[in-house]
Amino acid sequence: MATTKRTRPSAVRNARNVGRWDLEADVVVVGYGCAGASAAIEAVEAGADTLIVERASGGGGTSANAGGLLYMGGGTPVQRACGFEDTPEEMFKFLMAACGPDPDAAKIRVYCDDSVAHFHWLVAHGVPFKNSFYPEPWEPPTDDCLTYSGGENGYPFNRIAKPAPRAHKPQCVGSAGGLLMQKLTAAADGSGARIECDARCEALVVDDARRVVGVVVWQDRTERLVRARRGVILTAGGFVNNPEMVQRHVPLLARCAVKTGTETDDGRAIRMAMSAGADVIRMHAAEVAYPLAPHRLMRGILVNRYGQRFINEDTYFGRLAQEGLFRQDGEMFLIVDTAIYEPTAFGMQAAFVEESMAALERAIGLPTESLQAAVAYYNRFAARGEDPLFHKTATLLQPLSTPPYAAFDCRLSTQDVSVNATFSGFTLGGLHTLPTGEVLDPDGQIIPGLYAAGRTTSGVAAGGYCSGLSLGDGTFFGRKAGRSAAMAPAV
Amino acid sequence: MATTKRTRPSAVRNARNVGRWDLEADVVVVGYGCAGASAAIEAVEAGADTLIVERASGGGGTSANAGGLLYMGGGTPVQRACGFEDTPEEMFKFLMAACGPDPDAAKIRVYCDDSVAHFHWLVAHGVPFKNSFYPEPWEPPTDDCLTYSGGENGYPFNRIAKPAPRAHKPQCVGSAGGLLMQKLTAAADGSGARIECDARCEALVVDDARRVVGVVVWQDRTERLVRARRGVILTAGGFVNNPEMVQRHVPLLARCAVKTGTETDDGRAIRMAMSAGADVIRMHAAEVAYPLAPHRLMRGILVNRYGQRFINEDTYFGRLAQEGLFRQDGEMFLIVDTAIYEPTAFGMQAAFVEESMAALERAIGLPTESLQAAVAYYNRFAARGEDPLFHKTATLLQPLSTPPYAAFDCRLSTQDVSVNATFSGFTLGGLHTLPTGEVLDPDGQIIPGLYAAGRTTSGVAAGGYCSGLSLGDGTFFGRKAGRSAAMAPAV
Repeated sequence: MATTKRTRPSAVRNARNVGRWDLEADVVVVGYGCAGASAAIEAVEAGADTLIVERASGGGGTSANAGGLLYMGGGTPVQRACGFEDTPEEMFKFLMAACGPDPDAAKIRVYCDDSVAHFHWLVAHGVPFKNSFYPEPWEPPTDDCLTYSGGENGYPFNRIAKPAPRAHKPQCVGSAGGLLMQKLTAAADGSGARIECDARCEALVVDDARRVVGVVVWQDRTERLVRARRGVILTAGGFVNNPEMVQRHVPLLARCAVKTGTETDDGRAIRMAMSAGADVIRMHAAEVAYPLAPHRLMRGILVNRYGQRFINEDTYFGRLAQEGLFRQDGEMFLIVDTAIYEPTAFGMQAAFVEESMAALERAIGLPTESLQAAVAYYNRFAARGEDPLFHKTATLLQPLSTPPYAAFDCRLSTQDVSVNATFSGFTLGGLHTLPTGEVLDPDGQIIPGLYAAGRTTSGVAAGGYCSGLSLGDGTFFGRKAGRSAAMAPAV
Repeated sequence: MATTKRTRPSAVRNARNVGRWDLEADVVVVGYGCAGASAAIEAVEAGADTLIVERASGGGGTSANAGGLLYMGGGTPVQRACGFEDTPEEMFKFLMAACGPDPDAAKIRVYCDDSVAHFHWLVAHGVPFKNSFYPEPWEPPTDDCLTYSGGENGYPFNRIAKPAPRAHKPQCVGSAGGLLMQKLTAAADGSGARIECDARCEALVVDDARRVVGVVVWQDRTERLVRARRGVILTAGGFVNNPEMVQRHVPLLARCAVKTGTETDDGRAIRMAMSAGADVIRMHAAEVAYPLAPHRLMRGILVNRYGQRFINEDTYFGRLAQEGLFRQDGEMFLIVDTAIYEPTAFGMQAAFVEESMAALERAIGLPTESLQAAVAYYNRFAARGEDPLFHKTATLLQPLSTPPYAAFDCRLSTQDVSVNATFSGFTLGGLHTLPTGEVLDPDGQIIPGLYAAGRTTSGVAAGGYCSGLSLGDGTFFGRKAGRSAAMAPAV
């Protein structure tokens, strides 16, 4: 399906070949997910005649299918009401450590400094938040709001920045991406922005000075040319559902059974912008998750194909999965004893059960005595409440000493979609943008008339990830892009 | 210095704005390193009027400063004379395993199938090879030719493909990059190709159909416009000496003290092509080396910051360094005992020396009992000639049991340039090309008139690396690009 949709080229068109513009606006927003809605609201509020062009039959995009967490901090009303102290500086220190290597400091700086204001903006545009904390490091299944979503309170981040929970879920039971997008699209619809749906934006139009001046839209079997007097804002998602792009940029993600995104995440906006001379960065980066809830299973130990532990099991599950996929080639096992064992929340059972660690090691096929050595070392210190290697929190440290012993098989090579025992993920690489949303070329020069936000760009999460960063930086930098485009001189 | 050279934009120009072409040729080759020289020779031999444009005052580029190894196999005369059996299929299996994840199978296929023919082509163009084998897995300091350069005869590759040495060094004592380029530039000069030196190619010229029809050259403080009737071939190196590009694409390489390349490896050709709509892939990939010769030091064990081994120490030193940099964040130590210890060939001494492993572990700052556990495990099996974890070759397995014990500090964070104890590297990412040298856009479409080879492209080594692959695929695919461009219809 994706392939058919890519048959028409994303290559740039020249404005000289445009006979007549079918539509015009000051600001044209491509894509109506969280970044597009936020961009449109800001653009309208800044006085710009704004048009949203959306491929699907309505707003929402991948954002509407998301869990709904928004990463915000620095002392939001919810954080304060729940008794958590936070400052922009601690948030900055954490994100710089968690989102690297070498994430975009300028982006993270403004993201942290303006985070409380962004919370108030969301509330002002109808997004409700409850003043409550959910203690498990997972998207709250309740209508609670605040949760740890990046391993802030575990090693190594608890030694780098003062921990605070920063994922905020809009108030509804379970996943809140739908609610978030319902509120944001209602605000955008009500703002006066015009919206064209079932309209696939296919290419940018540039003038002879290489300024972006419009877009080519395919709608109702007709090509329509849309002029953008002040700017085009690309907020059309990432490329996780473009198999060829994933294969050439993130081959390990290509092997993950679940691609998190809608079919429209085919990278077209990225390709359109590249054709207009845009730079792309961190195209190899991806968010990855592996379903190992409930968190109490993290009393076990995760080992790689050499029987070695490689991470504190109590860290953010996305970090754990990224490490497992990208540094261990997707080869990992969760080892537990009978005192810890239970099937995962997603129905995954132990793949191997044996009366001794030696037998378990053999059954899995780990190197001789490797798992036994790792468990002996772990147990020796866990009995004292210590984890010299990875500093797992003491409450999750207990020796694995109650046979039989069991291993969950968490290998990429044996993913079992039937019980959801699968790696899932989406792309983090994309256009190189300034915090203003302006798109840069490979020389580092701004491309006039072009803006972008959300997963069409490389955002706050340059490599590492925390839950809530995509809706978080999508809405945040969507707004920045909307304002920038609206304030740009009209041509 | 690099910054000044980048002040002029690499953005594409439109042919409509070209009043007069200052120079014309069928094929314009940008850059006169190994790929450019090979491209020019082939283009001329295919009947094309060919012009080479080179920034420096003469040919050679980074190739001339290289060790001179060329990765070739499948049964070359040198391999056969030295008693090594090899086939294109075994070479293919090895490169697919060593150059990933997921290297370009089509490129590797033709690289292996035509490798023997490529050897003969080099000989026919004056490059001498001696029928001799050098047993250390390192660039021969002698005038010997053949050597293992990718860990072919060690784990895991010796279980994937039948091992054969494939790095061929042209015959001269020591580094042979200079000799190689002397011969190739002599062949290119003698072929009838025209050469413009001290001429920096700055941008591509495209026509309204987005075909590449020429280049903009800056020479003697004058802009000169050069028409390419059949094609432009970009062979101008990678981007290791563009600090901004390295920082945004390969931040860990940015921290390496030594950047292997000439100052002209500033990524301009990549940026020029991107401005014409080219795709880039694997921009995060880099060759990395860490100087741990002589190989007998690999009787020690390499451990990460958790005191764990992470690789068979006898593998290719580049693979070891890539693992150490990208998967261990540049945190590694080489642990030896007195029976093994000697300073490295580059003068690096042990940073820590202690009478017991416990004391060494403390001195280094490794987690309690971690190194002790790793050494105890290693010693137990090494005494039997076994390495269950990483399958180091038996002749290098000996228990670390002769105190005092010592550690070389191989951390990125403590690089010591004064004794050359440094990570060095160069970039592997670049333009996405077909085996023909044709450059693709992000939709996977060929950009008419544009070709590329060498480190301006993502080549055989998509991620992993073997010594000899850059001169190897630069000359090989330079030739392919030269022939493709020469055979293209003239415009």
